[in-house]
Amino acid sequence: MKNRLAKRNSKVSSFYVMELLRLAKQLEAQGVDVIHMEIGEPDFPTPSTIINAGIKHLQSGEVKYTPAAGLPELQNKISSFYLKRYGVSIDQRRIFVTPGASGAFLLAFAVSLNPNEEVLMADPCYPCNSNFATLFGGNTKSIPVDASTHYQLTAEQIKKHWSSTAKGALIASPSNPTGTLIPPEELKKAINAVNDLEGCFYSDEIYHGLVYDQTAQTALMYSDNVFIINSFSKYFGMTGWRIGWLIVPNDFIEATEKLAQNIYIATSTQAQYAALAAFDEDTLSELEDRRLQFAARRDFLYENLLRLGFEIPIKPDGAFYIYANCKKFTDDSHQFALDFLAKEGVAITPGIDFGKYEAHHMLRFSYTTSLDKMTVAMKRLERFIQQR
Amino acid sequence: MKNRLAKRNSKVSSFYVMELLRLAKQLEAQGVDVIHMEIGEPDFPTPSTIINAGIKHLQSGEVKYTPAAGLPELQNKISSFYLKRYGVSIDQRRIFVTPGASGAFLLAFAVSLNPNEEVLMADPCYPCNSNFATLFGGNTKSIPVDASTHYQLTAEQIKKHWSSTAKGALIASPSNPTGTLIPPEELKKAINAVNDLEGCFYSDEIYHGLVYDQTAQTALMYSDNVFIINSFSKYFGMTGWRIGWLIVPNDFIEATEKLAQNIYIATSTQAQYAALAAFDEDTLSELEDRRLQFAARRDFLYENLLRLGFEIPIKPDGAFYIYANCKKFTDDSHQFALDFLAKEGVAITPGIDFGKYEAHHMLRFSYTTSLDKMTVAMKRLERFIQQR
Repeated sequence: MKNRLAKRNSKVSSFYVMELLRLAKQLEAQGVDVIHMEIGEPDFPTPSTIINAGIKHLQSGEVKYTPAAGLPELQNKISSFYLKRYGVSIDQRRIFVTPGASGAFLLAFAVSLNPNEEVLMADPCYPCNSNFATLFGGNTKSIPVDASTHYQLTAEQIKKHWSSTAKGALIASPSNPTGTLIPPEELKKAINAVNDLEGCFYSDEIYHGLVYDQTAQTALMYSDNVFIINSFSKYFGMTGWRIGWLIVPNDFIEATEKLAQNIYIATSTQAQYAALAAFDEDTLSELEDRRLQFAARRDFLYENLLRLGFEIPIKPDGAFYIYANCKKFTDDSHQFALDFLAKEGVAITPGIDFGKYEAHHMLRFSYTTSLDKMTVAMKRLERFIQQR
Repeated sequence: MKNRLAKRNSKVSSFYVMELLRLAKQLEAQGVDVIHMEIGEPDFPTPSTIINAGIKHLQSGEVKYTPAAGLPELQNKISSFYLKRYGVSIDQRRIFVTPGASGAFLLAFAVSLNPNEEVLMADPCYPCNSNFATLFGGNTKSIPVDASTHYQLTAEQIKKHWSSTAKGALIASPSNPTGTLIPPEELKKAINAVNDLEGCFYSDEIYHGLVYDQTAQTALMYSDNVFIINSFSKYFGMTGWRIGWLIVPNDFIEATEKLAQNIYIATSTQAQYAALAAFDEDTLSELEDRRLQFAARRDFLYENLLRLGFEIPIKPDGAFYIYANCKKFTDDSHQFALDFLAKEGVAITPGIDFGKYEAHHMLRFSYTTSLDKMTVAMKRLERFIQQR
């Protein structure tokens, strides 16, 4: 039988962490107490206010399709949230409620990216972002970044790497895997650079809210001519619900609406009704408490990794990741992660999942687990390093 | 500012029915009692067993990501359902739980369709199916079909229209908009034809279960080398939950898994837990009662449309649509639908939403509303026709 797979499949990168997950499950099946520091999902449950709103909606029995762009009431609440948190006023017709940030990326690239056009992204970055471009025949131009620019693209890099096939640039702040924020002045310059080049600026803001020493700034503070990808998954603790949002520039509203109708009809109705409670004072107060817990975990993990000899040239500002250089111990971080899991039962993600630049020296540690478990994990890490 | 929209947007067809929906909402705002016979959504609520399973899961608070292919328990239930209902045994690794049939189509075409490759489809057919091909740079070859083939593609047509750029053929049975089933022998021949041509056979089975005088046959009864698109939306009454499934041939399992991880991470967790109850005896018994109600509605609508002078050369077997020829009254079914709504407050869908062939003579009537309301709608239709 001939190979009928579409050619794009060979360009879609695999997650190396999946191999680790399989190994982790095998170990757990053998009774090993595996500590998960590879996971990009908060360990906290969905806030009870949101759960209760979901239950209340289900009890009504009316789980019908909503408009493709989402419940107008939810679009309105998102718009109000931007005014309150960032001081920016957003026409709610620009807001599309989507099946997770995944749906937002899908829609953003579907509406704007032609085959063979290029999106500039930092290396390291979250691998799915690049795969969404691949899906539509687009390409990613990965630009190595380091601590000197907070692991973020700069306006200078964007201008330097912009080619005739470039369509836009993506900045994720806080970044996955580095947890670093782009400084406000740099964000503004990067947006201006892309606008001057008449490209599309995609701002991945899914870790907004999970920022510990300062406040994240939305790209909307500097321009209306940007795509914003956001999600109820991380800060609002709604991963499994699959709900996020996309904000588009004015000239993309009509085409985005048509695509949304075609690509997914509408986002999960019960997730939308539940998300109506996400902006309640009670919810935000619970989320603030969690944010402080994440901050304490970050400090703990950061101090311990430094103490053990990992290099972290810039302290992460947000998200729940630390991207640490392990060159003191190995030139093969992937093997290091596999060995660490096999010997000590702690799962972490190898740098190779996030790009090529220095990836063999890098490891991503997630602090989506308790301080107690991380304390054990750090003891295991210390022993593992000493025994190498 | 230059036009930054991706070129594919101009190829994605609009739904003409959206214009009617806007008009309908205006009328309703003015207090007009609009009867909706344009909607592709059952009027019944989600069965209470499914709702209760959803509530019970939410009460656990653990709404985390599931594996990309879905909860193994749900994959297993779907597999058992195929054995019980159709007598076919399906390896559950071939089953991917998806965000609605939309997610299933997205995945099926993403994994198999290259840019510039063609999918053969019947004209008329559901417009989104064609737009999913467009999304990935593929094309649709629309083949006019009529009552002589139950509005379904035949093996002969597939062979005749197969070109060097053809990748596969899509058959939707029961069809939207015609409600007609492909005869079992013809389904088998069509699958064999596509397999002989080494193409992909896509079987849209989202209206299975809603079949009134016979039993629908799944393409899996004739070959394992097929893509099955199905959904919990229509028969199981779970539209707003956004959950469906895709079954792929063995050689597509690995690539489909990788794409699913990238495109949507996982399907809504609470929808999956709720859907675990979809195959319970209590649920199926409630659904059987609804099926009988739909059958009665079909008979009522069919007889009334014939009585009023519409041509329906073949009685629909399933789904909840009647595709009726109105050439006795007009050569512009789109204008007919607009006028009927404006004058009588009944919304129906013009043929132009489903293709080009004879579209100006065709109207789709949905029987997703009660017999009482349809009785009023038929009186209004009679008056409308008499006054023309």
